Amino acid sequence: MVTYDDIAAAHERLKPVARRTPVLTSATVDAITGARVFFKCENFQRMGAFKFRGAYNALSQLTDEEKKLGVLAFSSGNHAQAVALAGKILNISTVIVMPADAPKVKLDATRGYGGEVVLYQKGENREELAARLCAQRNLTLIPPFDHPHIIAGQGTAAKELIEDAGPIDALLVPCGGGGLISGCAVAARRLAPDCRVIGVEPAAGDDATRSFKEKKLVKIETPDTIADGARTTSLGKLTFPLVLSYVADMLTVTDEELLRSMFFLWERMKIVVEPTGALAACAVLEKKLNLEKLRVGVVLSGGNVDLRWAAAQLNKN
Amino acid sequence: MVTYDDIAAAHERLKPVARRTPVLTSATVDAITGARVFFKCENFQRMGAFKFRGAYNALSQLTDEEKKLGVLAFSSGNHAQAVALAGKILNISTVIVMPADAPKVKLDATRGYGGEVVLYQKGENREELAARLCAQRNLTLIPPFDHPHIIAGQGTAAKELIEDAGPIDALLVPCGGGGLISGCAVAARRLAPDCRVIGVEPAAGDDATRSFKEKKLVKIETPDTIADGARTTSLGKLTFPLVLSYVADMLTVTDEELLRSMFFLWERMKIVVEPTGALAACAVLEKKLNLEKLRVGVVLSGGNVDLRWAAAQLNKN
Repeated sequence: MVTYDDIAAAHERLKPVARRTPVLTSATVDAITGARVFFKCENFQRMGAFKFRGAYNALSQLTDEEKKLGVLAFSSGNHAQAVALAGKILNISTVIVMPADAPKVKLDATRGYGGEVVLYQKGENREELAARLCAQRNLTLIPPFDHPHIIAGQGTAAKELIEDAGPIDALLVPCGGGGLISGCAVAARRLAPDCRVIGVEPAAGDDATRSFKEKKLVKIETPDTIADGARTTSLGKLTFPLVLSYVADMLTVTDEELLRSMFFLWERMKIVVEPTGALAACAVLEKKLNLEKLRVGVVLSGGNVDLRWAAAQLNKN
Repeated sequence: MVTYDDIAAAHERLKPVARRTPVLTSATVDAITGARVFFKCENFQRMGAFKFRGAYNALSQLTDEEKKLGVLAFSSGNHAQAVALAGKILNISTVIVMPADAPKVKLDATRGYGGEVVLYQKGENREELAARLCAQRNLTLIPPFDHPHIIAGQGTAAKELIEDAGPIDALLVPCGGGGLISGCAVAARRLAPDCRVIGVEPAAGDDATRSFKEKKLVKIETPDTIADGARTTSLGKLTFPLVLSYVADMLTVTDEELLRSMFFLWERMKIVVEPTGALAACAVLEKKLNLEKLRVGVVLSGGNVDLRWAAAQLNKN
């Protein structure tokens, strides 16, 4: 399990290397929602997403032997960059298994941080490929979300948000594999015990919402959604029970709603947020729940988006 | 003239209403430039640009009679929104004379803040139109840059930047009519006396650079540049002598360089900056001057850009 103390310890480890990202507010958003909304801008985190928190927390706790041999991660994008950057800072060599169709900006950035990128094609089993590479080269696998050190690292985002924003009544968090929301929910339970933590998923990938409502782990096919960071097929062995215990509700938003919210954040708040990063904000902006007069935390989880891809989306509408 | 005390007084007036915008840094930018760069994010200012500072400072110092009768401004964009928003906060009615081809996002926002928008066509003399409206309706004209209260208000951006970043060796500021750079240079002279203040203009609108080098006021035709906030034809009666006294150098960047820097800020720093807002950053990113090992302040002056326009620029390249 993951406790608040694990998150506090992760926070100490992260202090010298992670960015304490700003918490921004917007008079326009407050007027639209009737709430007081605090945006935790993890799009400004190092490598552009919260994922750095978990990856660094995990890599820094490896044994000296494991550090010497190196690590491997498979990821649709941000976890890849996070592990590559954490490896660079800690002088640990990193192998990153990425889909061949990952956004170019993410492939470039991963290589830029010194990660050795191994691409897999659609249909290939990335888990098998990763296991084979780990065995051949004695690498330690760094999973993207289902690991206590990853979860504790991600929880530091909510710790900072609540410390900076003050008391909040609700906390909305994007949900893919559940690492971010699990950690954030554990942090919120201690720092804002009455706060309702709400996860937001793409409608096309509603496995966590269904798992939450049915109280059993639902697995789906790889979801077809623009929220590439939430193209997970299920919660994990650790994150599912944490979500059941600590999360108050789960919601979904459509890709169309998500794009609208993403561009709203760009145009009105002047911040570049990627589709997955805008999930929680979308639930607020599209009024998926009544937040009137509440103090609301929203995690903007990342900002790694290919501008040409975004421009094409804009032209479609 | 404008003194540091005027800027300090403006800062007190602005504290309850303006945003103290964050100062962001970027490991990537520091690696590219060899400098330590501090970005003052006025794209996060209310209405999306530094212009709110000057407009509010000017409107709040009107007499009760002037406030009752209302004000008029003519502007290619951000000054319009700034005056409209300041008027809304101070309960002063505002008439805004804007070019009919101003970006839609700026027209919408100005009306959204309650400004009465009067459009003029290309070729029409906006000064005459403004003078006629002022006379007919007893309105006070709020000029976009050449007014001591405007200049003092804009200088508060540099005051905050230096307070938050600590000592700086150079300060780069976008230059249109010179209100921002004049105010910033006066503030810097007091708070960082050894700091070199450098103005950055679009190459197609290099009137201030030429005026600075030739030490006489150069007037040009309305410049053809994507930096719509710097489509001014000359510095003003107040800003020209201030630039001569306080500014160390002036530089220009091409529109092509400017676009590249603008999209770099979007993609790597995750912040939406408009072309004019990226002028000073462009001089740094395109290495127009040697900043190695220096602590450098850069004012990102605004973020009001039409996303569809930006997408079209991206597709052109």
